[in-house]
Amino acid sequence: MTRLCRTFQTAPAAIPNDDSAKFLRSGLTSEGFQAPDWLVPDIEDGTAPSMKGEAVDNIVAHVPDHAPDFAGDILPRVEWAYDDADACERGVEQVERLADEVGEHIDGFVFPKVGRLDDVRDAAGVVADAERDAGLDEGSLDLAIILETARARSDLREICQYAADSRLSALVFGPVDYTAELGGRALHGERPRWDGLLEALSNETSAAGVAAIGGPFDQLFHERAGVTYYNAEGYADQVEHEATIGIDGSWSLHPKQTEQANRIHMPTADELERDLHKIESFNEAKREGTGAVVVDGQMVDEATYKNFANTVKTVRAIDEAHPAQTEEYYDEDVLDRANAVDLIFG
Amino acid sequence: MTRLCRTFQTAPAAIPNDDSAKFLRSGLTSEGFQAPDWLVPDIEDGTAPSMKGEAVDNIVAHVPDHAPDFAGDILPRVEWAYDDADACERGVEQVERLADEVGEHIDGFVFPKVGRLDDVRDAAGVVADAERDAGLDEGSLDLAIILETARARSDLREICQYAADSRLSALVFGPVDYTAELGGRALHGERPRWDGLLEALSNETSAAGVAAIGGPFDQLFHERAGVTYYNAEGYADQVEHEATIGIDGSWSLHPKQTEQANRIHMPTADELERDLHKIESFNEAKREGTGAVVVDGQMVDEATYKNFANTVKTVRAIDEAHPAQTEEYYDEDVLDRANAVDLIFG
Amino acid sequence: MTRLCRTFQTAPAAIPNDDSAKFLRSGLTSEGFQAPDWLVPDIEDGTAPSMKGEAVDNIVAHVPDHAPDFAGDILPRVEWAYDDADACERGVEQVERLADEVGEHIDGFVFPKVGRLDDVRDAAGVVADAERDAGLDEGSLDLAIILETARARSDLREICQYAADSRLSALVFGPVDYTAELGGRALHGERPRWDGLLEALSNETSAAGVAAIGGPFDQLFHERAGVTYYNAEGYADQVEHEATIGIDGSWSLHPKQTEQANRIHMPTADELERDLHKIESFNEAKREGTGAVVVDGQMVDEATYKNFANTVKTVRAIDEAHPAQTEEYYDEDVLDRANAVDLIFG
Repeated sequence: MTRLCRTFQTAPAAIPNDDSAKFLRSGLTSEGFQAPDWLVPDIEDGTAPSMKGEAVDNIVAHVPDHAPDFAGDILPRVEWAYDDADACERGVEQVERLADEVGEHIDGFVFPKVGRLDDVRDAAGVVADAERDAGLDEGSLDLAIILETARARSDLREICQYAADSRLSALVFGPVDYTAELGGRALHGERPRWDGLLEALSNETSAAGVAAIGGPFDQLFHERAGVTYYNAEGYADQVEHEATIGIDGSWSLHPKQTEQANRIHMPTADELERDLHKIESFNEAKREGTGAVVVDGQMVDEATYKNFANTVKTVRAIDEAHPAQTEEYYDEDVLDRANAVDLIFG
Repeated sequence: MTRLCRTFQTAPAAIPNDDSAKFLRSGLTSEGFQAPDWLVPDIEDGTAPSMKGEAVDNIVAHVPDHAPDFAGDILPRVEWAYDDADACERGVEQVERLADEVGEHIDGFVFPKVGRLDDVRDAAGVVADAERDAGLDEGSLDLAIILETARARSDLREICQYAADSRLSALVFGPVDYTAELGGRALHGERPRWDGLLEALSNETSAAGVAAIGGPFDQLFHERAGVTYYNAEGYADQVEHEATIGIDGSWSLHPKQTEQANRIHMPTADELERDLHKIESFNEAKREGTGAVVVDGQMVDEATYKNFANTVKTVRAIDEAHPAQTEEYYDEDVLDRANAVDLIFG
Repeated sequence: MTRLCRTFQTAPAAIPNDDSAKFLRSGLTSEGFQAPDWLVPDIEDGTAPSMKGEAVDNIVAHVPDHAPDFAGDILPRVEWAYDDADACERGVEQVERLADEVGEHIDGFVFPKVGRLDDVRDAAGVVADAERDAGLDEGSLDLAIILETARARSDLREICQYAADSRLSALVFGPVDYTAELGGRALHGERPRWDGLLEALSNETSAAGVAAIGGPFDQLFHERAGVTYYNAEGYADQVEHEATIGIDGSWSLHPKQTEQANRIHMPTADELERDLHKIESFNEAKREGTGAVVVDGQMVDEATYKNFANTVKTVRAIDEAHPAQTEEYYDEDVLDRANAVDLIFG
């Protein structure tokens, strides 16, 4: 993964407010750690049925002003559902208009509720047609899909193999619709985490070289003793779990979540220091001709080494795109060592 | 799933007792919450090899008397095993005789120990032949299979795709044989739960529109300080877990288990009240034009809404089939609200 | 599984020491419970790049002396990687030379970092060519692969189906490279256990009739209050988990680990006593004509019985190959009962 996608922030493209583009504009002008790697103006479930038209108008009106200064990617989420022809028809119109009017300012589209591989191919065809009709370069618009139906999960392997040779560049988990499709129940207040799906998602996207993004965390606030507060703990637990199993980025519903996910998907200072230490120790032992080396009680060989090298490579990528973030996050001398160390393997 | 299958109760069709049909007749005449949605007269592992013939005789003798008053489905489990030609031959004879003599009183057959997709097709062929020879309407007898071999698990996706267009209408997990096939060991007294299999089973059956049923729980009794008591806790834990991940029904070995599983696979009163509240609040906000709504700290949109609608739809289905159960289980006014509320999505 | 593979012990074939074959020779001459069922002289990640040649020399020099007295199988691990043509070229040369010079003393080769099914076929072709060129009997050299890439995990089902009809006879998990490929991070010091992969590995290898072996445990030592000690607990937890889910054997990096895994993959004395008791009680009830039987509160039928029979069959296999191990491990009378009991099912 050379493309950064630590955060996938959805923002309703129109809300019932005097300023209906408030959340959209807020996402487009976010700064520092609150700037998502991907901003997803949402025309689908986050926008009321009566406001879909205004949502598209808002994207057309505001994206051109702010896109040039926005460091990340912009991919509107349109309407679509494998089992709803009306939704698909509206989605086609939304893609056509947006490609035509703001196609040069956006990076692609997010399609929800796709079904089996054939349905994903249809979605890609919609984007290809709109791209051509709008006179854009072939392949300039990406496709991302929400993995939230039993059919898409069933075809996950084939969908990812298709992604390897197509404009499909990211798969994003949608646990709420997914749980509803399977008939799951939140008996004790919590949905299942769907560990098997997440593990398969991480594997198949890695085999195909495309991005995997976790699902939204909607328990935004907790209430205790009459006080309502932002639920930072719950979201951090989810994002950390995703990072552990190789999910590349996390879904954000709020700038506070974006700030958290951007940080968690960066190696911690301790992690960077520890992995640098192992790499440097191994490099030194290597110069002395040893194969397997024990550092701090753990055997290090070429395989282990690559895990440590991943840490360093991620830091380098963030440092190149967002130098202000790495500057705030790491001690200067550790950052210098990360940029200087020789990565023998990986 | 329009067909109710909260409970899949096996009853040995012949036991070494003066009244060898005791358990069979007890299942057929069960009442209230102890009446299973599916009764499975067992000719296979629950019946001694020397009593297989008597087991078939018992079904022929007793099912016609009781089937007209039995509210659920009746599917005998016959002998079969992908790797045992003798067992398959006996199974064919059992299916032929039962289809011929009581075909109009039963709903299908359960085949254990199926192997790869080809073996499942063979099982379906046996039922089709017997159905035709008995002069029954085409498709009047369903097939359910026990998923309990490594081969069937390997072909799970293809077997479910086949189910979508065939008489195969339910897959039931068989953990004991499955664990034995894989060479698993109960080192600390417990078998693995096989979470990956259960998640895949829920997904693939949902994609195909057929039923998924969990495995038996055989630790029926606990002993402590010399007192033996029914292990209600252990069974409840298993059934609740199955409900959480969208497994449609649970296996029962005992009327007490049937009563528990029938109840757990009903939404709780709290669950119904909570989901009704969210639906009603959303409906009200909707009339005022808002898209995403926060109710009790949780964001509700079309996707979340469908989860709540599932609760209401299940209650309506049970109320139609077993009004005495819903009457006992819910307050009258909540049940009235569940039947009256407008389900915008789902 | 008739072939014993409780332990898969890798030993670097050359280390930077006056006696560079020290670990190799130590493995070949191990005794008692420290003798692994499979010894894997490692030319790959465990041996420094500058010592690969010496590693092959060491195998050629030492294996012929010790192989005749070594009770287990010997399979060198050569270099290979689906995405590294140079590594594959070196691997081919290593296989050719070893097949030619010590082909009659070894049992096959271990190939790391294989990709999709095509790459596994290529690896099998390399072994077949070398076997023929060396004038060895067809099929005399086995292939084992390390499952440690996203591509191999994606093709696991097809790879195992290929194994059923080929020289591929074991799949071994490689969690370190695997986690690196997926971009996973050890945020709180631990890698994921990859439960979904392990469950699928156990299932697909069982469906194909080949061996499944768990990954290495590299936290060999703990340090507390300044004292460093061998981490027996951590390794035991991992090996017990593998045994529970039907993984046939465990990877060992050290003679102490070999001793642990050899023992854990043997039924415990309690386990043997308990399962013998259930088999004997069932056999007795069976003679009296009963089908399902309750022993110690658990229902026993043909399916349950097979689990207990697995325990007895494993003990018999170890007793035949390593009578000294069973003699040390079990009371004489229990061992006699295990060898004498009639296994009705399984």
